[in-house]
Amino acid sequence: MTWGVPHIDLPPLPGIAALLAGHPHTAGPLNSLAEVLLRGPSPLSPAEREAIAAYVSRRNECTFCAETHGAVARHLGADGSEPGPRMSALLAIAEKVRVDGRSVTGDDIARARAVGADDQAIHDTVLIAAAFCMFNRYVDGLATLTPEDPALYDRRGRILAEHGYLEPPRLTP
Amino acid sequence: MTWGVPHIDLPPLPGIAALLAGHPHTAGPLNSLAEVLLRGPSPLSPAEREAIAAYVSRRNECTFCAETHGAVARHLGADGSEPGPRMSALLAIAEKVRVDGRSVTGDDIARARAVGADDQAIHDTVLIAAAFCMFNRYVDGLATLTPEDPALYDRRGRILAEHGYLEPPRLTP
Repeated sequence: MTWGVPHIDLPPLPGIAALLAGHPHTAGPLNSLAEVLLRGPSPLSPAEREAIAAYVSRRNECTFCAETHGAVARHLGADGSEPGPRMSALLAIAEKVRVDGRSVTGDDIARARAVGADDQAIHDTVLIAAAFCMFNRYVDGLATLTPEDPALYDRRGRILAEHGYLEPPRLTP
Repeated sequence: MTWGVPHIDLPPLPGIAALLAGHPHTAGPLNSLAEVLLRGPSPLSPAEREAIAAYVSRRNECTFCAETHGAVARHLGADGSEPGPRMSALLAIAEKVRVDGRSVTGDDIARARAVGADDQAIHDTVLIAAAFCMFNRYVDGLATLTPEDPALYDRRGRILAEHGYLEPPRLTP
Protein backbone atom coordinates (compact mmCIF):
# COMPACT_ATOMS: atom_id res chain seq x y z
CA MET A 1 0.00 0.00 0.00
CA THR A 2 1.61 3.28 -1.01
CA TRP A 3 1.37 6.99 -1.58
CA GLY A 4 1.15 8.54 1.83
CA VAL A 5 -1.69 9.05 4.22
CA PRO A 6 -5.35 9.75 3.39
CA HIS A 7 -6.59 13.29 4.07
CA ILE A 8 -9.06 12.05 6.73
CA ASP A 9 -9.04 9.21 9.25
CA LEU A 10 -10.17 6.02 7.49
CA PRO A 11 -10.03 2.26 8.03
CA PRO A 12 -6.80 0.72 6.62
CA LEU A 13 -8.35 -0.41 3.33
CA PRO A 14 -7.45 0.58 -0.24
CA GLY A 15 -9.27 3.11 -2.41
CA ILE A 16 -13.03 3.36 -2.15
CA ALA A 17 -13.19 0.35 0.21
CA ALA A 18 -11.91 2.63 3.00
CA LEU A 19 -14.53 5.29 2.21
CA LEU A 20 -17.40 2.80 2.04
CA ALA A 21 -16.36 1.15 5.33
CA GLY A 22 -15.71 4.45 7.10
CA HIS A 23 -18.80 6.28 5.84
CA PRO A 24 -21.68 3.79 5.78
CA HIS A 25 -24.47 6.39 5.35
CA THR A 26 -23.28 7.28 1.88
CA ALA A 27 -21.98 3.76 1.11
CA GLY A 28 -25.53 2.42 0.70
CA PRO A 29 -26.62 4.64 -2.21
CA LEU A 30 -23.13 4.52 -3.79
CA ASN A 31 -23.11 0.71 -3.82
CA SER A 32 -26.70 0.63 -5.11
CA LEU A 33 -25.77 3.01 -7.90
CA ALA A 34 -22.76 0.90 -8.93
CA GLU A 35 -24.87 -2.27 -8.89
CA VAL A 36 -27.75 -0.93 -11.01
CA LEU A 37 -25.44 0.89 -13.42
CA LEU A 38 -22.95 -1.94 -13.94
CA ARG A 39 -25.14 -5.04 -13.41
CA GLY A 40 -28.77 -3.94 -13.84
CA PRO A 41 -30.82 -4.23 -17.06
CA SER A 42 -29.00 -2.64 -20.02
CA PRO A 43 -28.36 -3.34 -23.71
CA LEU A 44 -24.66 -3.18 -22.75
CA SER A 45 -23.15 -6.30 -21.21
CA PRO A 46 -21.63 -6.04 -17.71
CA ALA A 47 -18.18 -6.49 -19.32
CA GLU A 48 -18.83 -3.57 -21.69
CA ARG A 49 -20.04 -1.37 -18.82
CA GLU A 50 -17.02 -2.23 -16.68
CA ALA A 51 -14.80 -1.42 -19.67
CA ILE A 52 -16.41 2.05 -19.93
CA ALA A 53 -15.85 2.55 -16.18
CA ALA A 54 -12.20 1.47 -16.50
CA TYR A 55 -11.66 3.69 -19.57
CA VAL A 56 -13.02 6.83 -17.88
CA SER A 57 -11.05 6.09 -14.71
CA ARG A 58 -7.87 5.60 -16.75
CA ARG A 59 -8.42 8.89 -18.57
CA ASN A 60 -8.99 10.60 -15.18
CA GLU A 61 -5.74 8.94 -14.03
CA CYS A 62 -7.48 7.34 -11.06
CA THR A 63 -5.25 4.27 -10.75
CA PHE A 64 -7.30 2.50 -8.09
CA CYS A 65 -10.56 2.64 -10.06
CA ALA A 66 -8.92 1.98 -13.44
CA GLU A 67 -7.08 -1.12 -12.22
CA THR A 68 -10.07 -2.43 -10.28
CA HIS A 69 -12.65 -2.08 -13.04
CA GLY A 70 -10.18 -3.22 -15.71
CA ALA A 71 -9.77 -6.42 -13.67
CA VAL A 72 -13.55 -6.81 -13.24
CA ALA A 73 -14.01 -6.45 -17.03
CA ARG A 74 -11.40 -9.17 -17.66
CA HIS A 75 -13.06 -11.52 -15.19
CA LEU A 76 -16.37 -10.88 -16.98
CA GLY A 77 -14.83 -11.95 -20.27
CA ALA A 78 -13.49 -8.73 -21.84
CA ASP A 79 -10.48 -9.89 -23.83
CA GLY A 80 -8.67 -6.58 -24.26
CA SER A 81 -8.94 -6.61 -28.05
CA GLU A 82 -9.78 -3.46 -30.01
CA PRO A 83 -13.36 -2.32 -29.28
CA GLY A 84 -15.90 -2.85 -32.07
CA PRO A 85 -17.72 0.02 -33.82
CA ARG A 86 -20.54 0.39 -31.25
CA MET A 87 -18.19 0.31 -28.29
CA SER A 88 -15.81 2.77 -30.01
CA ALA A 89 -18.63 5.25 -30.58
CA LEU A 90 -19.80 4.90 -26.96
CA LEU A 91 -16.26 5.35 -25.60
CA ALA A 92 -15.99 8.56 -27.64
CA ILE A 93 -19.17 9.83 -25.94
CA ALA A 94 -17.84 8.73 -22.53
CA GLU A 95 -14.64 10.69 -23.12
CA LYS A 96 -16.60 13.84 -23.99
CA VAL A 97 -18.78 13.45 -20.89
CA ARG A 98 -15.62 13.02 -18.82
CA VAL A 99 -14.22 16.35 -20.02
CA ASP A 100 -17.48 18.34 -20.07
CA GLY A 101 -21.03 17.06 -20.53
CA ARG A 102 -21.85 20.01 -22.76
CA SER A 103 -19.29 18.87 -25.36
CA VAL A 104 -21.42 15.88 -26.49
CA THR A 105 -22.89 16.82 -29.88
CA GLY A 106 -25.79 15.56 -31.95
CA ASP A 107 -23.20 14.18 -34.37
CA ASP A 108 -21.61 12.08 -31.60
CA ILE A 109 -25.04 10.64 -30.82
CA ALA A 110 -25.89 10.05 -34.50
CA ARG A 111 -22.57 8.24 -34.99
CA ALA A 112 -23.36 5.90 -32.08
CA ARG A 113 -26.90 5.24 -33.35
CA ALA A 114 -25.57 4.42 -36.82
CA VAL A 115 -23.55 1.53 -35.38
CA GLY A 116 -26.37 0.10 -33.27
CA ALA A 117 -26.47 2.06 -30.00
CA ASP A 118 -30.03 2.69 -28.83
CA ASP A 119 -31.30 5.33 -26.39
CA GLN A 120 -30.71 3.10 -23.37
CA ALA A 121 -27.13 2.31 -24.40
CA ILE A 122 -26.43 6.03 -24.85
CA HIS A 123 -28.07 6.85 -21.51
CA ASP A 124 -26.15 4.16 -19.69
CA THR A 125 -22.84 5.23 -21.24
CA VAL A 126 -23.35 8.87 -20.22
CA LEU A 127 -24.35 7.97 -16.66
CA ILE A 128 -21.49 5.47 -16.21
CA ALA A 129 -18.99 8.08 -17.44
CA ALA A 130 -20.54 10.72 -15.16
CA ALA A 131 -20.63 8.36 -12.16
CA PHE A 132 -16.95 7.49 -12.53
CA CYS A 133 -16.14 11.19 -12.66
CA MET A 134 -17.68 11.11 -9.15
CA PHE A 135 -16.06 7.89 -7.89
CA ASN A 136 -12.61 8.94 -9.21
CA ARG A 137 -12.83 12.32 -7.47
CA TYR A 138 -14.08 10.76 -4.23
CA VAL A 139 -11.18 8.27 -4.18
CA ASP A 140 -8.47 10.74 -5.19
CA GLY A 141 -9.87 13.87 -3.49
CA LEU A 142 -9.42 12.21 -0.09
CA ALA A 143 -6.06 10.66 -1.03
CA THR A 144 -7.08 7.06 -0.30
CA LEU A 145 -4.43 4.36 -0.50
CA THR A 146 -3.52 2.98 -3.93
CA PRO A 147 -2.00 -0.52 -3.83
CA GLU A 148 0.66 -1.34 -6.40
CA ASP A 149 0.40 -5.15 -6.44
CA PRO A 150 -1.46 -6.28 -9.61
CA ALA A 151 -2.51 -9.49 -7.83
CA LEU A 152 -4.63 -7.47 -5.42
CA TYR A 153 -6.60 -5.85 -8.25
CA ASP A 154 -7.01 -9.22 -9.93
CA ARG A 155 -8.45 -10.69 -6.74
CA ARG A 156 -10.77 -7.73 -6.13
CA GLY A 157 -11.83 -7.88 -9.79
CA ARG A 158 -12.72 -11.56 -9.54
CA ILE A 159 -14.76 -11.05 -6.38
CA LEU A 160 -16.66 -8.05 -7.81
CA ALA A 161 -17.25 -9.92 -11.09
CA GLU A 162 -18.77 -12.83 -9.16
CA HIS A 163 -20.68 -11.01 -6.43
CA GLY A 164 -21.41 -7.49 -7.69
CA TYR A 165 -21.49 -4.37 -5.53
CA LEU A 166 -24.29 -4.88 -3.04
CA GLU A 167 -22.92 -7.51 -0.70
CA PRO A 168 -19.50 -8.61 -1.82
CA PRO A 169 -17.52 -10.68 0.67
CA ARG A 170 -15.47 -8.37 2.84
CA LEU A 171 -12.59 -7.11 0.72
CA THR A 172 -9.41 -6.69 2.71
CA PRO A 173 -6.17 -5.19 1.45
CA MET B 1 -38.11 25.64 -22.03
CA THR B 2 -35.23 26.22 -24.39
CA TRP B 3 -32.04 25.02 -25.97
CA GLY B 4 -33.00 22.35 -28.43
CA VAL B 5 -33.87 18.71 -28.08
CA PRO B 6 -32.37 16.18 -25.65
CA HIS B 7 -30.03 13.58 -27.14
CA ILE B 8 -32.39 10.72 -26.19
CA ASP B 9 -36.18 10.37 -25.94
CA LEU B 10 -37.28 11.69 -22.52
CA PRO B 11 -40.46 12.87 -20.80
CA PRO B 12 -41.06 16.65 -21.34
CA LEU B 13 -39.55 17.73 -18.01
CA PRO B 14 -36.58 20.01 -17.31
CA GLY B 15 -33.06 18.91 -16.41
CA ILE B 16 -32.60 15.87 -14.23
CA ALA B 17 -36.37 15.56 -13.66
CA ALA B 18 -36.65 14.13 -17.20
CA LEU B 19 -33.85 11.64 -16.55
CA LEU B 20 -35.25 10.50 -13.20
CA ALA B 21 -38.74 10.06 -14.65
CA GLY B 22 -37.53 8.35 -17.82
CA HIS B 23 -34.97 6.07 -16.16
CA PRO B 24 -36.44 4.86 -12.86
CA HIS B 25 -33.90 2.07 -12.26
CA THR B 26 -31.10 4.54 -11.75
CA ALA B 27 -33.37 7.23 -10.26
CA GLY B 28 -33.67 5.30 -6.98
CA PRO B 29 -30.00 5.30 -6.00
CA LEU B 30 -29.47 8.82 -7.41
CA ASN B 31 -32.30 10.25 -5.29
CA SER B 32 -31.08 8.32 -2.23
CA LEU B 33 -27.58 9.68 -2.73
CA ALA B 34 -28.85 13.28 -3.00
CA GLU B 35 -30.98 12.84 0.12
CA VAL B 36 -28.25 11.39 2.34
CA LEU B 37 -25.59 13.78 1.05
CA LEU B 38 -27.66 16.96 1.28
CA ARG B 39 -30.07 16.16 4.14
CA GLY B 40 -28.53 13.29 6.13
CA PRO B 41 -26.40 13.65 9.29
CA SER B 42 -23.48 16.07 8.74
CA PRO B 43 -21.66 18.85 10.60
CA LEU B 44 -22.62 21.02 7.60
CA SER B 45 -26.13 22.45 7.52
CA PRO B 46 -28.41 21.54 4.61
CA ALA B 47 -28.11 25.18 3.42
CA GLU B 48 -24.29 24.94 3.44
CA ARG B 49 -24.38 21.64 1.56
CA GLU B 50 -26.79 23.02 -1.05
CA ALA B 51 -24.48 26.03 -1.42
CA ILE B 52 -21.54 23.70 -2.15
CA ALA B 53 -23.68 21.85 -4.72
CA ALA B 54 -24.71 25.15 -6.34
CA TYR B 55 -21.12 26.44 -6.36
CA VAL B 56 -19.72 23.33 -8.07
CA SER B 57 -22.58 23.33 -10.59
CA ARG B 58 -21.99 27.00 -11.35
CA ARG B 59 -18.27 26.39 -11.89
CA ASN B 60 -19.16 23.47 -14.19
CA GLU B 61 -21.53 25.86 -15.99
CA CYS B 62 -24.48 23.49 -15.49
CA THR B 63 -27.22 26.11 -15.40
CA PHE B 64 -30.05 23.77 -14.44
CA CYS B 65 -28.25 22.37 -11.37
CA ALA B 66 -26.74 25.72 -10.35
CA GLU B 67 -30.07 27.55 -10.47
CA THR B 68 -31.96 24.72 -8.79
CA HIS B 69 -29.58 24.20 -5.86
CA GLY B 70 -28.99 27.93 -5.48
CA ALA B 71 -32.75 28.30 -5.02
CA VAL B 72 -32.87 25.38 -2.55
CA ALA B 73 -30.07 26.99 -0.50
CA ARG B 74 -31.99 30.30 -0.40
CA HIS B 75 -35.17 28.56 0.74
CA LEU B 76 -33.13 26.84 3.47
CA GLY B 77 -31.93 30.20 4.75
CA ALA B 78 -28.68 30.91 2.88
CA ASP B 79 -28.61 34.68 2.56
CA GLY B 80 -26.07 35.03 -0.24
CA SER B 81 -23.59 36.97 1.91
CA GLU B 82 -19.85 36.26 1.73
CA PRO B 83 -19.06 32.78 3.07
CA GLY B 84 -17.31 32.63 6.46
CA PRO B 85 -13.81 31.16 6.95
CA ARG B 86 -14.88 27.51 7.28
CA MET B 87 -17.16 27.66 4.26
CA SER B 88 -14.47 29.47 2.22
CA ALA B 89 -11.91 26.78 3.00
CA LEU B 90 -14.40 24.03 2.09
CA LEU B 91 -15.38 25.74 -1.18
CA ALA B 92 -11.68 25.91 -2.08
CA ILE B 93 -11.47 22.13 -1.58
CA ALA B 94 -14.68 21.62 -3.58
CA GLU B 95 -13.21 23.61 -6.48
CA LYS B 96 -10.05 21.48 -6.49
CA VAL B 97 -12.12 18.27 -6.44
CA ARG B 98 -14.17 19.63 -9.33
CA VAL B 99 -11.07 20.12 -11.48
CA ASP B 100 -9.16 16.99 -10.42
CA GLY B 101 -9.40 15.06 -7.15
CA ARG B 102 -5.64 14.60 -7.10
CA SER B 103 -5.10 18.36 -6.80
CA VAL B 104 -6.33 18.51 -3.17
CA THR B 105 -3.23 18.95 -0.98
CA GLY B 106 -2.47 18.41 2.67
CA ASP B 107 -2.24 22.19 2.97
CA ASP B 108 -5.80 22.60 1.67
CA ILE B 109 -6.97 20.14 4.33
CA ALA B 110 -4.90 21.78 7.10
CA ARG B 111 -6.33 25.18 6.19
CA ALA B 112 -9.89 23.83 6.51
CA ARG B 113 -9.13 22.13 9.83
CA ALA B 114 -7.62 25.36 11.21
CA VAL B 115 -10.96 27.12 10.74
CA GLY B 116 -13.07 24.38 12.30
CA ALA B 117 -13.74 21.78 9.59
CA ASP B 118 -13.60 18.23 10.97
CA ASP B 119 -13.08 14.96 9.09
CA GLN B 120 -16.79 14.53 8.39
CA ALA B 121 -17.14 18.08 7.01
CA ILE B 122 -14.15 17.49 4.72
CA HIS B 123 -15.52 14.11 3.63
CA ASP B 124 -18.96 15.52 2.92
CA THR B 125 -17.53 18.46 0.97
CA VAL B 126 -15.43 16.18 -1.23
CA LEU B 127 -18.31 13.79 -1.90
CA ILE B 128 -20.81 16.59 -2.62
CA ALA B 129 -18.36 18.18 -5.08
CA ALA B 130 -17.70 14.80 -6.70
CA ALA B 131 -21.41 13.93 -6.87
CA PHE B 132 -22.25 17.19 -8.61
CA CYS B 133 -19.51 16.50 -11.13
CA MET B 134 -21.68 13.45 -11.88
CA PHE B 135 -25.09 15.14 -11.80
CA ASN B 136 -23.87 18.05 -13.96
CA ARG B 137 -22.45 15.68 -16.59
CA TYR B 138 -25.61 13.53 -16.58
CA VAL B 139 -27.84 16.59 -17.11
CA ASP B 140 -25.65 18.25 -19.75
CA GLY B 141 -24.26 15.11 -21.43
CA LEU B 142 -27.78 14.17 -22.54
CA ALA B 143 -28.72 17.78 -23.40
CA THR B 144 -31.75 17.93 -21.12
CA LEU B 145 -33.97 21.01 -21.25
CA THR B 146 -32.86 24.10 -19.32
CA PRO B 147 -35.72 26.47 -18.43
CA GLU B 148 -34.95 30.19 -18.40
CA ASP B 149 -37.73 31.40 -16.08
CA PRO B 150 -36.29 32.19 -12.61
CA ALA B 151 -39.73 31.60 -11.07
CA LEU B 152 -39.54 27.94 -12.05
CA TYR B 153 -36.25 27.45 -10.19
CA ASP B 154 -37.61 29.29 -7.19
CA ARG B 155 -40.64 27.00 -7.09
CA ARG B 156 -38.54 23.84 -7.52
CA GLY B 157 -36.14 25.13 -4.86
CA ARG B 158 -38.94 25.70 -2.36
CA ILE B 159 -40.37 22.22 -2.93
CA LEU B 160 -36.98 20.49 -2.62
CA ALA B 161 -36.16 22.57 0.49
CA GLU B 162 -39.41 21.43 2.10
CA HIS B 163 -39.61 17.81 0.95
CA GLY B 164 -36.09 16.67 0.11
CA TYR B 165 -35.14 14.29 -2.67
CA LEU B 166 -36.83 10.99 -1.84
CA GLU B 167 -40.47 11.70 -2.48
CA PRO B 168 -40.96 15.28 -3.53
CA PRO B 169 -44.39 16.13 -4.95
CA ARG B 170 -44.36 15.60 -8.70
CA LEU B 171 -42.36 18.47 -10.19
CA THR B 172 -43.71 19.60 -13.51
CA PRO B 173 -42.13 22.18 -15.82
